[in-house]
Amino acid sequence: MPDHAPDFELTADVRDYECDLQGVVNNAVYQNYLEHARHKYLQSLGLSFAAFHRQGHDLVLTRAEIDYKAPLQSGDRYTVKLRIEKESRLRFRFVQDIYKEDGTHVLHGRLIGTCINRDGHRGFPPEIEALLDQR
Amino acid sequence: MPDHAPDFELTADVRDYECDLQGVVNNAVYQNYLEHARHKYLQSLGLSFAAFHRQGHDLVLTRAEIDYKAPLQSGDRYTVKLRIEKESRLRFRFVQDIYKEDGTHVLHGRLIGTCINRDGHRGFPPEIEALLDQR
Amino acid sequence: MPDHAPDFELTADVRDYECDLQGVVNNAVYQNYLEHARHKYLQSLGLSFAAFHRQGHDLVLTRAEIDYKAPLQSGDRYTVKLRIEKESRLRFRFVQDIYKEDGTHVLHGRLIGTCINRDGHRGFPPEIEALLDQR
Amino acid sequence: MPDHAPDFELTADVRDYECDLQGVVNNAVYQNYLEHARHKYLQSLGLSFAAFHRQGHDLVLTRAEIDYKAPLQSGDRYTVKLRIEKESRLRFRFVQDIYKEDGTHVLHGRLIGTCINRDGHRGFPPEIEALLDQR
Repeated sequence: MPDHAPDFELTADVRDYECDLQGVVNNAVYQNYLEHARHKYLQSLGLSFAAFHRQGHDLVLTRAEIDYKAPLQSGDRYTVKLRIEKESRLRFRFVQDIYKEDGTHVLHGRLIGTCINRDGHRGFPPEIEALLDQR
Repeated sequence: MPDHAPDFELTADVRDYECDLQGVVNNAVYQNYLEHARHKYLQSLGLSFAAFHRQGHDLVLTRAEIDYKAPLQSGDRYTVKLRIEKESRLRFRFVQDIYKEDGTHVLHGRLIGTCINRDGHRGFPPEIEALLDQR
Repeated sequence: MPDHAPDFELTADVRDYECDLQGVVNNAVYQNYLEHARHKYLQSLGLSFAAFHRQGHDLVLTRAEIDYKAPLQSGDRYTVKLRIEKESRLRFRFVQDIYKEDGTHVLHGRLIGTCINRDGHRGFPPEIEALLDQR
Repeated sequence: MPDHAPDFELTADVRDYECDLQGVVNNAVYQNYLEHARHKYLQSLGLSFAAFHRQGHDLVLTRAEIDYKAPLQSGDRYTVKLRIEKESRLRFRFVQDIYKEDGTHVLHGRLIGTCINRDGHRGFPPEIEALLDQR
């Protein structure tokens, strides 16, 4: 994420139960970190993933591309940075990076998704539409 | 669970991501194993935890007592055995044990719960009531 | 935990992936919260669960007693409070409570454990011994 | 995976705790499924991810590309199919697909990795080298 300011960032500690028998954060757990950062970003805008679900709008991923660059371990503190972009009329894209406190680049991800509505059609609720149109 | 036949048992493999940096299955993961065995037990009776939720009946734990007796590790295969009992008019109790293939007793648990209904009152759906009345 | 000041407390946000199909934090996840608070407590004293493991001292739970009093949901913020006590010569006990921001008592737990050393005998490293002797 | 027979397949049930508040298996959990299938594949060849770690050879992912095509839900049964390929001299690639019992294509993934050895250099242990050379 070299050339743009992130839209949001979130810092947290590695939790020991997130580490596997290799003593590093398990690959799947980074998707937890990325999801939590996306949902906190929405929350920072007054939007709620859970409320969208209750209203019949399910934001879902359709593709994840993740480059694992360096591991996180017990005791590490990390920052997730993210930027939201419009992938297409019906798709959003989150560009997300994780860094250690010392600046080590841990992970680069591109998380692409859409919104599936209770009536079956795709299309974003107005708040997400407005957010993407600003990009 | 020495003196009663179990009502249900389920055998599975430890998954490596369930092991933590000590190289053993993390304490929290055993609650996953115990929950999965309870839900598969219900399913074996034609009952579904998820369907109860959709119908407005949430089966929830109110207390867990778990004795950790021996660890499970990568490569281990385990069996969860369970028995359901009536704790009180509004409470069920699952007595659950986990064993390794070589007979090692891994865990003993007593998981006590109730049912919270969408209208706020407690009380079991008829299928669970019938199940507990047989005990 | 009404009559003693806690030894440590830690506040965090519910993460949406921690919620299950009932829309509440899954029972197993609270053990993650409790473990993370215990390990951060050790860290606040300059002690590390992971370092103890590397040095051949595995702190392990032998028993968990958890009362689930009220659920946490998406959007909730919670505080884990803990107190460490000496259960016996070879056992520690963590008394842990979780509260919501509005004061709702979410969970009460008693987590009892010991230390298994690489040479097979039980017994705490001096730092933990000293900690327990102050209780 | 239309045009090749898989090298391995593994069938399992969705566990309810793997479902999130949308009522579907959480995105991160599929990485657990994929990892477990890879490790069981190694085990079917007499190889162990945990043993490699103890011997100083850490098999790690460097990139994951995952297309989420259809969700899994409570009660679903799924099969993970995989094929191993040589990505480059120092990289392996697992092509993995998940299907529901009714044939629905749930997920397609390309998981690329390498081996980091305790002495710091990259390079596979002979058993993995031999496996990749057959491809």
